[in-house]
Amino acid sequence: MKLLLLGSTGSIGTSTCNCVRRFEGAFTFAGLSANNNVERLVHQVEEFRIPAVCICSAIAAKKARPLLPQAVRVYEGKEGLEQLVNETDFDVLVNALVGAVGFKPTVAALKRNKRVALANKESLVIGGDIIKGLLEQGCGSLVPIDSEHSAILQCLNGEDPSTIESITITASGGPFLNKKAEEFGSITPQEALKHPTWSMGHKITIDSSTLINKGFEVIEAHYLFAMPYDRLKVMIHPQSIIHSMVTFFDGAVMAQCGIPDMEIPIQYALSYPRRLPIRGKRLDLAKIKSISFAEPDYKRFPSLKLCIDAGRQGGTIPAVLNAANEIAVYQFLKGAIGFHHIPRTIEYALDAHRNQPADSVELIEETDAQTRTKVLQYIHARRD
Amino acid sequence: MKLLLLGSTGSIGTSTCNCVRRFEGAFTFAGLSANNNVERLVHQVEEFRIPAVCICSAIAAKKARPLLPQAVRVYEGKEGLEQLVNETDFDVLVNALVGAVGFKPTVAALKRNKRVALANKESLVIGGDIIKGLLEQGCGSLVPIDSEHSAILQCLNGEDPSTIESITITASGGPFLNKKAEEFGSITPQEALKHPTWSMGHKITIDSSTLINKGFEVIEAHYLFAMPYDRLKVMIHPQSIIHSMVTFFDGAVMAQCGIPDMEIPIQYALSYPRRLPIRGKRLDLAKIKSISFAEPDYKRFPSLKLCIDAGRQGGTIPAVLNAANEIAVYQFLKGAIGFHHIPRTIEYALDAHRNQPADSVELIEETDAQTRTKVLQYIHARRD
Repeated sequence: MKLLLLGSTGSIGTSTCNCVRRFEGAFTFAGLSANNNVERLVHQVEEFRIPAVCICSAIAAKKARPLLPQAVRVYEGKEGLEQLVNETDFDVLVNALVGAVGFKPTVAALKRNKRVALANKESLVIGGDIIKGLLEQGCGSLVPIDSEHSAILQCLNGEDPSTIESITITASGGPFLNKKAEEFGSITPQEALKHPTWSMGHKITIDSSTLINKGFEVIEAHYLFAMPYDRLKVMIHPQSIIHSMVTFFDGAVMAQCGIPDMEIPIQYALSYPRRLPIRGKRLDLAKIKSISFAEPDYKRFPSLKLCIDAGRQGGTIPAVLNAANEIAVYQFLKGAIGFHHIPRTIEYALDAHRNQPADSVELIEETDAQTRTKVLQYIHARRD
Repeated sequence: MKLLLLGSTGSIGTSTCNCVRRFEGAFTFAGLSANNNVERLVHQVEEFRIPAVCICSAIAAKKARPLLPQAVRVYEGKEGLEQLVNETDFDVLVNALVGAVGFKPTVAALKRNKRVALANKESLVIGGDIIKGLLEQGCGSLVPIDSEHSAILQCLNGEDPSTIESITITASGGPFLNKKAEEFGSITPQEALKHPTWSMGHKITIDSSTLINKGFEVIEAHYLFAMPYDRLKVMIHPQSIIHSMVTFFDGAVMAQCGIPDMEIPIQYALSYPRRLPIRGKRLDLAKIKSISFAEPDYKRFPSLKLCIDAGRQGGTIPAVLNAANEIAVYQFLKGAIGFHHIPRTIEYALDAHRNQPADSVELIEETDAQTRTKVLQYIHARRD
């Protein structure tokens, strides 16, 4: 099975490489993309004899070209990602890009009738209606990589979808689960980057600390499993052992559990509906002794509510929320704004937007770009 | 679907009646059996217009005959159970009998190529090899009613059996989970009958308090899911929320959860592989707040180890263990022996037995009967 892996040097990307190493021959890479980690990309190209790459950053691309074998096709920039998808012979797109940039490659792969193993949440968050439309027309298929959605998919194995009563997405609650509201203003990027259970990239780790990531997952689940928002629940579960659960209309609840290790859902997305073996650590609940649960606190984590509400409203609103959040998170990581300014920035962007049906890729792109400009201006104005 | 329900006045029996009430028309009763609860049986016969019954106790049968409509066929005694199975037109046998008496009706139903919804653990504990042989010959099918085995069946839904790594059967731990070893001698039947999470009949409640019930379930799982004993684990989980779990060879763990309510697994056994709706209470983990796990303590609960070891040895040994336990439990309930004498009585019976392959129904019956006599003599001798 030939994989095209976008975001190969990130956390999901390197874990995907481990799955391919584990099943050499069964899985090969038809191409990779990276943003700016040239060193790791060059290593990957050598190890897996990659015929085509895309490097998103122009500076990184310039640095990489002389280090790559001559035979390698090299694409550049955001546009290069789509070209890579359109001009490469592959079976499965593993979309591990971070942010709205992942949307168009997903669309391109589906239009080519390919399977997309999706780690890029933004594809569904900002373009859910368009992707749903493509899938309904019979274009390609979508398998989730997120541990939560992989868990739900596993819970639905062999079940009749009409018997689902509700879906519960679990959330660790992040590093600030028990922090007082009045202390949120003084949170540093270093504190926010310490996720209690999962080891992930910077952007998603901050999104987990504000809980907006869980809101994104609610929107993803809405599209992936055709589930109305009032049957999608979020539950805090600090130990991240139950990755998500499905309640059926007879009261039975199926839960998928395990140690927090992204290689399990990544590999499942590649081999779905089969399983392939992974040696290594196993869940030992008797050692863990106890696991706990709580309702999320929407007051201390306003981004979660903003996100779910945006999903319910639909249209271009989720694209606005996502763009505002992306800018706010990077500005927070740079020290330009405080942690509590992240939801405020999102609220500003939402207030300034007039909703429309998100019926074209162009409109979503335009909304995304306009929001970024507006939000950056807002942040800079605040600092002056 | 026509059900033949054996043990209709017990805990599983009355819950089965609720499922039939819920789906009037879809499920009907072709016959019932009871031991000695004449009043409840007569009510059930009237409500469900039952054409045939078996009453196991001769005294109860005498009492019941004049109270039953003339058209009802009435069978009597243990032999009557088999006759009822052989002479009734039904689709599914719901075997909710308590004890070794349930074995022959299971065999009779399988020989008639029927589905057996099995709550009677002893069928597989004492006659696992014979039942396995019948199923392998293509005679009938077996669906578990036990919440643990129903959970495992649900976890295996849509999965490839060759990808199972291990099965973990959960146990509440019973009322004496935290009792000190030296206090076991003074346990009264009243204390042992207080199960912390499940409401069940007397025999199984005592079996849960000694944990031998979990050993029975290990033997059942060995036969139901063709699982070697070294891949079957027991885990203490006092809240009985996770009913059992399956670990797959990729490290993913599927768990079936829910509030402790036997109607869910009973109905699942009737509608398998479909689900039918049940309104009512739902699992709310945020309200439960936390659930816990521990390894079982084989020292304080020697019956559990005796039982699993008996399963591993196979042959007629499990029939001896079961018969000795049945007698010991009833003698304990009568106040004739102490709680800690239950495992001692089993050990006595096992020591006095020479193992043989359990290759005929007759040999199992004979072993069962001989053990009962021997154990009763042993208990009476001890008391003198």
